[in-house]
Amino acid sequence: MKALLLVSHGSRRKASNDEVRALTEAVRAQVCEEYEIVEAAFLELSEPLIPDGIDLCVARGATEVVVFPYFLAAGRHVADDIPGIAFEAITKHPGVTLRIAPHLGGSAMMSRFVADNALSVSNLRAQS
Amino acid sequence: MKALLLVSHGSRRKASNDEVRALTEAVRAQVCEEYEIVEAAFLELSEPLIPDGIDLCVARGATEVVVFPYFLAAGRHVADDIPGIAFEAITKHPGVTLRIAPHLGGSAMMSRFVADNALSVSNLRAQS
Repeated sequence: MKALLLVSHGSRRKASNDEVRALTEAVRAQVCEEYEIVEAAFLELSEPLIPDGIDLCVARGATEVVVFPYFLAAGRHVADDIPGIAFEAITKHPGVTLRIAPHLGGSAMMSRFVADNALSVSNLRAQS
Repeated sequence: MKALLLVSHGSRRKASNDEVRALTEAVRAQVCEEYEIVEAAFLELSEPLIPDGIDLCVARGATEVVVFPYFLAAGRHVADDIPGIAFEAITKHPGVTLRIAPHLGGSAMMSRFVADNALSVSNLRAQS
């Protein structure tokens, strides 16, 4: 059973964390054929933290957890912190496979996505 | 003449800023029918800063500048800093229209984009 764990930075602003949780709900509905479990987790400042998110996925029956960094830039968090925390956390669950997906900003589809969004704003009300 | 100014946070890591510049190049090719001018700018830590990016667009002939915040979360930077800086900068250019596009993370297409990326990683090599 495969789990997708959408990992974002976490914010002191509750609204920002709730936005990520709502996104996770929306993603869940669209990947349910591939991922039976879809959860959100945070690097810091909000809960569940990454280890708790991994535990949750495993408790629900995951045999494979795909950690998806919801980050635009491949900084230290993406390169070191998230993989480090996730691989440490998975040692508690022998037999469960962990994969770290490329961060969102590294997607080969990103320029097309930005372009589509930029084109869609062309009908916004002009402001001076 | 319409300009798209892709605004990201800016990083101390040159590679991260270069990644945004490369993205901007890729976007340019995909929106050229709508935006004759496409440039990158940064909130801080890299150049050009937002006012310089706006000046550059106007110097190239822009009569309308669309500022596109390349941010996932609608925090203080998106809500206050970027619009504040941009509207202050545009006062130097009477007759030029400024629009602030929704930040990337607020896109109604985001959950579909995350889902597509999550589905595309299903063939990654498993790691334990």
